[in-house]
Amino acid sequence: MSRFAFSILARDATTAARRGRLTTPHGTVETPAFMPVGTAGTVKAMTPGEVSGLGFEMILGNTYHLTLRPGEEVIRRLGGLHRFMNWQGSILTDSGGFQVLSLAGRRDIDDDGVDFRSHIDGRKLRMTPERSLEIQAALGSDIVMAFDDCPALPSEPERLAQAVARTTAWARRCRDVFPDDGRALFGIVQGGDDRALRAESAAAITTMGFDAHAIGGVSVGESAALSREVVAFTAPMLPESRARYLMGMGTPADLVAMIGHGIDLFDCVLPTRVARNGGLFTPEGRILIKRAEYKDDGRPVDPECGCEACRCYSRAYLRHLYMAGEILGIRLNTLHNLHQYAETIRQARRAIEAGRYAAFRDAFLARWRDTGSAAAGPAGDIAGDEGG
Amino acid sequence: MSRFAFSILARDATTAARRGRLTTPHGTVETPAFMPVGTAGTVKAMTPGEVSGLGFEMILGNTYHLTLRPGEEVIRRLGGLHRFMNWQGSILTDSGGFQVLSLAGRRDIDDDGVDFRSHIDGRKLRMTPERSLEIQAALGSDIVMAFDDCPALPSEPERLAQAVARTTAWARRCRDVFPDDGRALFGIVQGGDDRALRAESAAAITTMGFDAHAIGGVSVGESAALSREVVAFTAPMLPESRARYLMGMGTPADLVAMIGHGIDLFDCVLPTRVARNGGLFTPEGRILIKRAEYKDDGRPVDPECGCEACRCYSRAYLRHLYMAGEILGIRLNTLHNLHQYAETIRQARRAIEAGRYAAFRDAFLARWRDTGSAAAGPAGDIAGDEGG
Repeated sequence: MSRFAFSILARDATTAARRGRLTTPHGTVETPAFMPVGTAGTVKAMTPGEVSGLGFEMILGNTYHLTLRPGEEVIRRLGGLHRFMNWQGSILTDSGGFQVLSLAGRRDIDDDGVDFRSHIDGRKLRMTPERSLEIQAALGSDIVMAFDDCPALPSEPERLAQAVARTTAWARRCRDVFPDDGRALFGIVQGGDDRALRAESAAAITTMGFDAHAIGGVSVGESAALSREVVAFTAPMLPESRARYLMGMGTPADLVAMIGHGIDLFDCVLPTRVARNGGLFTPEGRILIKRAEYKDDGRPVDPECGCEACRCYSRAYLRHLYMAGEILGIRLNTLHNLHQYAETIRQARRAIEAGRYAAFRDAFLARWRDTGSAAAGPAGDIAGDEGG
Repeated sequence: MSRFAFSILARDATTAARRGRLTTPHGTVETPAFMPVGTAGTVKAMTPGEVSGLGFEMILGNTYHLTLRPGEEVIRRLGGLHRFMNWQGSILTDSGGFQVLSLAGRRDIDDDGVDFRSHIDGRKLRMTPERSLEIQAALGSDIVMAFDDCPALPSEPERLAQAVARTTAWARRCRDVFPDDGRALFGIVQGGDDRALRAESAAAITTMGFDAHAIGGVSVGESAALSREVVAFTAPMLPESRARYLMGMGTPADLVAMIGHGIDLFDCVLPTRVARNGGLFTPEGRILIKRAEYKDDGRPVDPECGCEACRCYSRAYLRHLYMAGEILGIRLNTLHNLHQYAETIRQARRAIEAGRYAAFRDAFLARWRDTGSAAAGPAGDIAGDEGG
């Protein structure tokens, strides 16, 4: 088993974009990389073989959802999350922080941790930095996220400052109990949309010896434009030599824009959740397959796309499956959207390698006309249907 | 394109079982054969590639469901049902008779046809023998079923006799308008559980020049034992040289028993519907994956099974997916059940070829301990969830 490592293979000529490689105990992950979200031990509607066949090398698992059901001890006894769900690649687990904090009216936060009630059966539970790492250890993930305090936006300045202080204290507690066993522990920078708080959080987190750093607290209620602005000023606060992970964001266009700011790693529920709601990403944005105009449309969703849905089926057929509530429709839509994300990432990597990332990004964003919300919320939020 | 044909390749030594081959405009179908049900233009939760990969060469499509949604003219314009759903093999379509008749309180039957209201939007529509064949022609199926009157069981003797008379008259009208274009038209024998009525119906239907014959009106409310009894006395009334199709039945054990009476062709919603409800067929019957005993069970569903679900996943994982309502659970359960049906059919074919069908059948039935109902209803009944 390899120990965690990150190396930069190439840098773009004019932007902060970089082409890198993560090494984990379960293999390598070329970056920039997008992680499909496997909330409850499955990337919704997909087999692991389909996910890896699309080119993804790492997925995200949700600590909150898996501790509630089936319980991390079940997964540990069955050999860990990789074996439980038959995923051969790498796994990053979130800390559960966002989920328990999003349980409005069902949780009570203090400086030590969070009391909460299960959204499934109302059980009273407690999450702390130590407990989060204990669960993530039982799951056996390759990359462990520190437990953080992630307020929604907008929040009062006092709340954002409190979250930065707590996130710092909790990050230290996570670091202190994390074993040196080859897996990685990532620290998370909070601070909301306040540049000074972001700088304070980054200064604290990046001097604690984490293997890499994440930007949390974006895509939590604010506009996509504000999300991008926060990332633009926060990314340069993170050390250049370590991987940078932007949590819970966004559309293909968001990915392309944020890679230009030096982000290496992404996760988002959008491709899978939008698919289940009949939304299909294309290089122009997205189409809603239920629209009557597609009833007789024999063309593929995206004539440029090489995915199974576009090679074998018409818009009319996908519309029919959606209208009839057929599972195959969700499958094909999900496959298509994940393929679009994978293809976008492949194009971005090639552009960085060629030193022409700015031109690629500008052309991509000029073509993009999506009017849908970019803010999907962090992976596995309770309100969304990705929450199980 | 080949014209429809049926040839018998081998006969069992001691039972009425036979090993045959259907030829249709879309290829050959080895028999005995089981047709997965593709109610609304999809075998629920499966891709066509998965269905053919399991060894199935023909599927069933539902005239009633497809005329309501998306409408047969949409499918015709897009090149027919094969192309619409990307199925390369053969397709048999039912007549819609059972579905419109099962719309209790929403239909009015007379000697000419049936007035009914759509279960989707309440539209008033009419189905007649001629209209059923018109829809099936638009769908472009390889095997067309005559429009029949199929009463539930139990029914009064007068109702069963009326259904036989109507089915005969409607069969003649279907035959009179069916074009000689290489596709096949199958006649349906009714008569409920009344041996004399079955003989009367068989005598009428089998002298009209149909390409093959079906036993309808079984698995419509009666016990599995009575279904098997009806098939046992009706099958010998059908000409030996033509294919025999038992509509809408049953479990793997039913298939094995009925093949011994000379049935060549089956369809049933059981493998797909039971899968969606967490039932998994094994050589011993079926297991309900939600049971608490499987929570920590690291074994595959059926250690003898070679399907992807059994090769790659534990009972504990499949239980978790079911409890969490995950689509992947439905996919894997469906794949497993269809594999069990395919494997049962393959074993039956080999036993017939070897002239040892009785021994195979008796061993299979001795091992079978299923207590679930065998009666699933004809494909695509409105009450069931296969009805879209």
